[in-house]
Amino acid sequence: MKAVVLVSGGMDSCVAAAIANEECDELYFLHANYGHRTEKRERKAFYDIAKYYGAKTMEVDLDYLKNIGGSALTDSNIDVPEADLGRKEIPVTYVPFRNANLLSIATSWAEVIGAERIYIGAVFEDSSGYPDCRPEFYEAFNKVIEIGTKPETKIEVVTPIIHMRKSEIVRKGVELKAPLHLTWSCYVSNGPKACGKCDSCVLRLKGFREAGIEDPIEYF
Amino acid sequence: MKAVVLVSGGMDSCVAAAIANEECDELYFLHANYGHRTEKRERKAFYDIAKYYGAKTMEVDLDYLKNIGGSALTDSNIDVPEADLGRKEIPVTYVPFRNANLLSIATSWAEVIGAERIYIGAVFEDSSGYPDCRPEFYEAFNKVIEIGTKPETKIEVVTPIIHMRKSEIVRKGVELKAPLHLTWSCYVSNGPKACGKCDSCVLRLKGFREAGIEDPIEYF
Repeated sequence: MKAVVLVSGGMDSCVAAAIANEECDELYFLHANYGHRTEKRERKAFYDIAKYYGAKTMEVDLDYLKNIGGSALTDSNIDVPEADLGRKEIPVTYVPFRNANLLSIATSWAEVIGAERIYIGAVFEDSSGYPDCRPEFYEAFNKVIEIGTKPETKIEVVTPIIHMRKSEIVRKGVELKAPLHLTWSCYVSNGPKACGKCDSCVLRLKGFREAGIEDPIEYF
Repeated sequence: MKAVVLVSGGMDSCVAAAIANEECDELYFLHANYGHRTEKRERKAFYDIAKYYGAKTMEVDLDYLKNIGGSALTDSNIDVPEADLGRKEIPVTYVPFRNANLLSIATSWAEVIGAERIYIGAVFEDSSGYPDCRPEFYEAFNKVIEIGTKPETKIEVVTPIIHMRKSEIVRKGVELKAPLHLTWSCYVSNGPKACGKCDSCVLRLKGFREAGIEDPIEYF
């Protein structure tokens, strides 16, 4: 079975790719540049992980997401805040409807190459609380795929780590020999070290700490 | 109320824009180039129609849809067939999951500018039979928007001409003084005249004929 895997270059998508690698024969990795702060470093992580898995790749440039703006990740006038995992509202790092854009591209690709699954490393409970990371979002998107593609097309979006805590994701990655040392999660830094302060770094570090495993990447 | 309108440059989206112009105060026209055959001519039609309505515009380049291929509109190795409105299968001019890609971009834009509606000139019965033109597709997509955006975001995709016959679309356009003379529907020709033979031309010409109105554009 062929699978498209959305690979940002972060830890979560790397573990989703590791799971896809267990379950499928041919991997097609999809990466999007959308003018986000850490585009350069994430792109490197993407190709490093793709090489590790021998996956075919497609890279897309979504300049319009930067032009549309409305997110601290794509608008340099909006600061990326330090982590605040207790907040109730949607964080300013939310990129409006980004995951629907990514899944639409993945579905177009999957339909043409005949891939039956799209893997995405969305995380729900132990996350920043983006609306497009909720399980219901993926259920609803699968309905759109079912209706909006050819009758003979069978594509399902799968979210293998959506209910895992970060520590479970770390353990699953280690168990499957996912190349976590090649990943990049930081929202702020383009390297060589991660900031250690943004939501994404703090969630990742907490996951490694709770798993009792040392994070192989370096922090400032 | 602000509205995003998907405007390809064809007759249907022009009439959808005319209806949006009746119902909303501020129009934001969205156009996509995706490496399709008539990209150049449609792009001109888009800007002509936008100027007519004084709409704000955004143009996006979706090169990946051409790279993905799988459609006669984006792959020069697949011929655009002459019209065959009686066919049962999905035509080769179907661009895989294109409308979901367009609606995702429109939703990202709408969420940031605070637009409450997205108009799309999809047509169901009197059409080529694309799966992403079915009413259920838009219902399902609205569910994805509701779940996948911020709680305070209220955006609805509206399909004002989806149940109209082509002749009704022509009459509605004339009634609302839509600039049908500026539109371009042909799948094959980049101008100055339309082919008159592809599905899109034949459906359009049939609509004008049944409405008893002369099509203001020229055909070979």
